Amino acid sequence: MATVPLLTDEEAPGESRAVFDEIRAARGTDYVNNFWRALAHDPALLRATWERAATVMAPGALDPLVKELVYIAVSTANGCAYCVHSHTAAARAKGMTPEQHAELLAVIAMASQTNALATALAVPVDERFKEN
Amino acid sequence: MATVPLLTDEEAPGESRAVFDEIRAARGTDYVNNFWRALAHDPALLRATWERAATVMAPGALDPLVKELVYIAVSTANGCAYCVHSHTAAARAKGMTPEQHAELLAVIAMASQTNALATALAVPVDERFKEN
Amino acid sequence: MATVPLLTDEEAPGESRAVFDEIRAARGTDYVNNFWRALAHDPALLRATWERAATVMAPGALDPLVKELVYIAVSTANGCAYCVHSHTAAARAKGMTPEQHAELLAVIAMASQTNALATALAVPVDERFKEN
Amino acid sequence: MATVPLLTDEEAPGESRAVFDEIRAARGTDYVNNFWRALAHDPALLRATWERAATVMAPGALDPLVKELVYIAVSTANGCAYCVHSHTAAARAKGMTPEQHAELLAVIAMASQTNALATALAVPVDERFKEN
Amino acid sequence: MATVPLLTDEEAPGESRAVFDEIRAARGTDYVNNFWRALAHDPALLRATWERAATVMAPGALDPLVKELVYIAVSTANGCAYCVHSHTAAARAKGMTPEQHAELLAVIAMASQTNALATALAVPVDERFKEN
Amino acid sequence: MATVPLLTDEEAPGESRAVFDEIRAARGTDYVNNFWRALAHDPALLRATWERAATVMAPGALDPLVKELVYIAVSTANGCAYCVHSHTAAARAKGMTPEQHAELLAVIAMASQTNALATALAVPVDERFKEN
Repeated sequence: MATVPLLTDEEAPGESRAVFDEIRAARGTDYVNNFWRALAHDPALLRATWERAATVMAPGALDPLVKELVYIAVSTANGCAYCVHSHTAAARAKGMTPEQHAELLAVIAMASQTNALATALAVPVDERFKEN
Repeated sequence: MATVPLLTDEEAPGESRAVFDEIRAARGTDYVNNFWRALAHDPALLRATWERAATVMAPGALDPLVKELVYIAVSTANGCAYCVHSHTAAARAKGMTPEQHAELLAVIAMASQTNALATALAVPVDERFKEN
Repeated sequence: MATVPLLTDEEAPGESRAVFDEIRAARGTDYVNNFWRALAHDPALLRATWERAATVMAPGALDPLVKELVYIAVSTANGCAYCVHSHTAAARAKGMTPEQHAELLAVIAMASQTNALATALAVPVDERFKEN
Repeated sequence: MATVPLLTDEEAPGESRAVFDEIRAARGTDYVNNFWRALAHDPALLRATWERAATVMAPGALDPLVKELVYIAVSTANGCAYCVHSHTAAARAKGMTPEQHAELLAVIAMASQTNALATALAVPVDERFKEN
Repeated sequence: MATVPLLTDEEAPGESRAVFDEIRAARGTDYVNNFWRALAHDPALLRATWERAATVMAPGALDPLVKELVYIAVSTANGCAYCVHSHTAAARAKGMTPEQHAELLAVIAMASQTNALATALAVPVDERFKEN
Repeated sequence: MATVPLLTDEEAPGESRAVFDEIRAARGTDYVNNFWRALAHDPALLRATWERAATVMAPGALDPLVKELVYIAVSTANGCAYCVHSHTAAARAKGMTPEQHAELLAVIAMASQTNALATALAVPVDERFKEN
């Protein structure tokens, strides 16, 4: 149902196949998911997206699992079904328990409702919350 | 600039003032922020929102700081300036470092761009991501 | 703070001024709000928007107040502060009581949270809900 | 296609099955729709969501049908296909006529376009619309 | 999966069938896509939408292909899978090359990420960007 | 009103000041707008964002002005007031005429309303629009 064909390894341009191989090596799996196969029409966009994702999602001041939880939260609010699925799977692969998943859902739901209330009430930002 | 007056302690109905006092006690501060003062017109909605927030944001399988990071992520994607401000302040109060804030921003930005790409490409969900 | 100057009656092109007069006549007030003054740079867009709004918001199978409540709901979910303000004022002018406003907020908040839950869970649509 | 398995009565924890029974009793039907079956992994979230929904959607200052129309509006703006489906069905069950549905769609479309125009023009809120 | 039946030519009211014929004539094809068939329950909404679309998308100060690119961008940000599909097809029919499509995707992704950053940082608008 | 202080040249870390200088050189102006000053707390995020933006917005298969129009469209749909302002200014600097701006607004409004209609009707994607 994509707006472009998903490219197999055979169909993908050489530079895209090289990125596929980097994805495989980084993840220790042969499977390359549909998102990258759809991006493979444009090797430059594929590479830029993959490299940036690898940098951003690497361990740092935040734990990789926490980063996946944040990713799910953003993807939910943006209504991206594909991303919700792929990052829920990624979070599980990084150790997300059913209890953590349930609490994540509860926080996302809570934020969504107070976001709506604050917007419908047009609540002005408290002076003490402003840094500039 | 709100769509309703923000109620002072004097103006708020008694049941709302009681919630203000619970907020003060829970947070150990005298300050009640504008969001609650805007909700105070409807004591039932104020109470339901406050009690649910207290339950959801309490420590559990996820750390309270992680919950605040998720809250900021949802609020950003929903474009709620008030909530971004109040929960960035809350995250700092719970120990968020500048490095963690910077990484949070990077993950939110990354998710936002791949959300858009997956939607524009209408990438079909991989079978292996489906649980049902 | 607009991205275009708001046009006074004197500055607006004649065709836009004519729409201003229709707005005044329809509403029984001299005041023309900022939205129309920002649109006045393009008389065709101003006229098309005003005429369509007048048609859509007129009494019909739904009551004009109900239409305003729906308008507030959409504007909240879309994060349009201007529209939330102008249609909350319009709903009040059409008789919205504080109790109705409070219930409207509660429904908007409820929908926002279940929207998020259904998206995060990627719940498949029940067969019985499909008409086609 | 969900991110969690939908639980049958047999698979659901006892506390979730109890909520299923309350849903059946309240609606006078044996059918429990997918949303609740997906939430059933977490009995506390299931119960909190169901009870809040029952309170919020009950008759009050606003008619239950009006509440469903608002729910459809929010769900549409948030892009939640599941919620659009389930609440369109609910609205029909509460008496929504095809004429009312058509007018609802027209108002949602109107609001969506003026939301976009007000945002693209960054129209400042008129002083008279501010309550605080 | 629609919330209303898609109407065939035989099922559609006469006034809707007349719009179908105008769509066919304007596009030089016999095919009427699902969007219009879903709208056909309400001939007035169908006609208003079709006529406005024909006016707005006609050649003017902006090229019709540029208008389609803008349409895809808005539809992506709003998460409308149907619209992303139909306007990607329309853009191709108007000459969009794979290279243009790839650059469009890159711009949409870029904007999505800086939108998120500006919102999460609550960056105040520079005085020089304000026209009013 | 930002959630972080906007950094002056004096306050910014050396690596961020270097990016400021690249921005100045690329644009032929001394002015560095608030977005970059807010990002300057994290030189790595600042550099990654600026370099990617410079690559993506450069002339290619699409004209730089067309890219700005797409940027405004995405920013509007995402409700990012800052981005709408900065990219409307950028589009003007690249030659956008008032007529082009007006047509852009009309297309954004049109897309917004049909996005909402397609979502509310849950219109299934026509087979002929699917590439995969």
